[in-house]
Amino acid sequence: MKLYGALEAGGTKMVLAIVNGQGELLDRISLPTETPAETMPQMIDYFRKEPISALGIACFGPLDLNPGSDTYGTITATPKLAWRNYPVLAAFRDALGVPAGLDTDVNAAALAEASLGAARGLDSCLYITVGTGLGGGVIIHGKPVHGLMHPEIGHIPIRPEEDDPMPHGVCPYHDCCPEGMAAGPAIEKRWGVSAKELPPEHPAWKLEAAYLAQVCANAILSFSPEKIIMGGGVMQQKFLFPMIRERTVGLLNGYITHPAIDSGLTDTIVEPGLGTESGIMGAYLLAKQAEEKP
Amino acid sequence: MKLYGALEAGGTKMVLAIVNGQGELLDRISLPTETPAETMPQMIDYFRKEPISALGIACFGPLDLNPGSDTYGTITATPKLAWRNYPVLAAFRDALGVPAGLDTDVNAAALAEASLGAARGLDSCLYITVGTGLGGGVIIHGKPVHGLMHPEIGHIPIRPEEDDPMPHGVCPYHDCCPEGMAAGPAIEKRWGVSAKELPPEHPAWKLEAAYLAQVCANAILSFSPEKIIMGGGVMQQKFLFPMIRERTVGLLNGYITHPAIDSGLTDTIVEPGLGTESGIMGAYLLAKQAEEKP
Repeated sequence: MKLYGALEAGGTKMVLAIVNGQGELLDRISLPTETPAETMPQMIDYFRKEPISALGIACFGPLDLNPGSDTYGTITATPKLAWRNYPVLAAFRDALGVPAGLDTDVNAAALAEASLGAARGLDSCLYITVGTGLGGGVIIHGKPVHGLMHPEIGHIPIRPEEDDPMPHGVCPYHDCCPEGMAAGPAIEKRWGVSAKELPPEHPAWKLEAAYLAQVCANAILSFSPEKIIMGGGVMQQKFLFPMIRERTVGLLNGYITHPAIDSGLTDTIVEPGLGTESGIMGAYLLAKQAEEKP
Repeated sequence: MKLYGALEAGGTKMVLAIVNGQGELLDRISLPTETPAETMPQMIDYFRKEPISALGIACFGPLDLNPGSDTYGTITATPKLAWRNYPVLAAFRDALGVPAGLDTDVNAAALAEASLGAARGLDSCLYITVGTGLGGGVIIHGKPVHGLMHPEIGHIPIRPEEDDPMPHGVCPYHDCCPEGMAAGPAIEKRWGVSAKELPPEHPAWKLEAAYLAQVCANAILSFSPEKIIMGGGVMQQKFLFPMIRERTVGLLNGYITHPAIDSGLTDTIVEPGLGTESGIMGAYLLAKQAEEKP
């Protein structure tokens, strides 16, 4: 039986798993994300315990994913300073001696949703996570989008809502971007309590839906994904989905006529088909791809 | 020698051409866009004069480009009412009896730029036209993007600039979208004279560059094209290019480190490699594709 290593590398924790060739998760552990010097040896030890054929890494970014670049496979301008310029792909490949694949955590999640989840059978999707940060992975023509670099949809310019008491947001780089306006830390800063403690009737959620609708409308009008899959901690507030759909339809305002939009985007803006497993299953798919094309 | 028909169907004029298999333009005419009853017979006559192997249509939109749809190949919600729901693809295919291919004018232009122009050899690009309208075509993984429908980047939500005397724009569908803020009619409405008459030092251009920079920054952060090619009447004001690049770099504000961005996007936000021929050459490529896969 073939085994694959899957790593979902996040800014606060690392999720490591062993998955078989049928996509069954056989073992999983979680480690806090410390510095590379502390965390890398623990992760390498874990993956050495089983005879894995390949490793897939779904990693926080930004990443250098250009195979022609000298710094291919490194983490680039992350605010997590200890990991900045860290050659995560080469480090694992060298230590484990197996093929390894790397993509952003959100591109990997989008890949998993397109292969096994809510966008199965479709040619395109956007996977958005709204949690500590806000990011998006994009699949078009069946493959993750990299292009110049890779999507960073959490940082597009959006516009403040009129009734927002914090119209500039909290992103250190951008005035009024989705991450700075609508990720967990923005909600907490704006209202003085964490998102989890805000009841569904709190005005926070109307504002949240409005910003996330801007992200959805932007995606539909920019690259037209067939599904927008929304996950992450903040999206555990399931009542947000109908609110986001309604605001997105409102922003499109009848300009595009399409059955999916005319029916209120109910089947277009959806929860992840893989629940909270999109990222780790994406890492597993990256491992399989790396094995096929090392 | 094989011949192909190429049609660039615009809201004000139709450009029709005969192109040989080497991509040489052998003949070209232009007709005003009247109603289908008036214009279609003239166009069919033109294409019947030569023994074309296939026809490519680069058409104003929105279009139904979903091959599984009952209304595949029709123009959908266009403000040009006589053409609304017109089955342009079937009409030509039936009248000429040759394979015919259809895409948006901007997707066709993007295809031509990716195959023969400024994005040759690249996997992805965005072609933006800024003229009577503002639209964008997207190539990713070498192919035009359709997805749910097709990109309509002229209608994404953007934010008004502080010093804009017309902060809502002129789009009948959307408050503050790129077409409503930055296409030719918006410039003319805002300043009372047509774009062509505004000297380079006029404040109109600083505002114009700011809005177009929002479109570029949005694209880079949403789907990360390797080139952004800007054409159309308004972009004949070449001094806009350095202004747009500078504002785009400003909007990204160091969040993404990439050689293309660090060097000021000089080789990323560029003029069309095919000059004003991107659309008609895109139509020719659609004809060749239709011949290969009728």
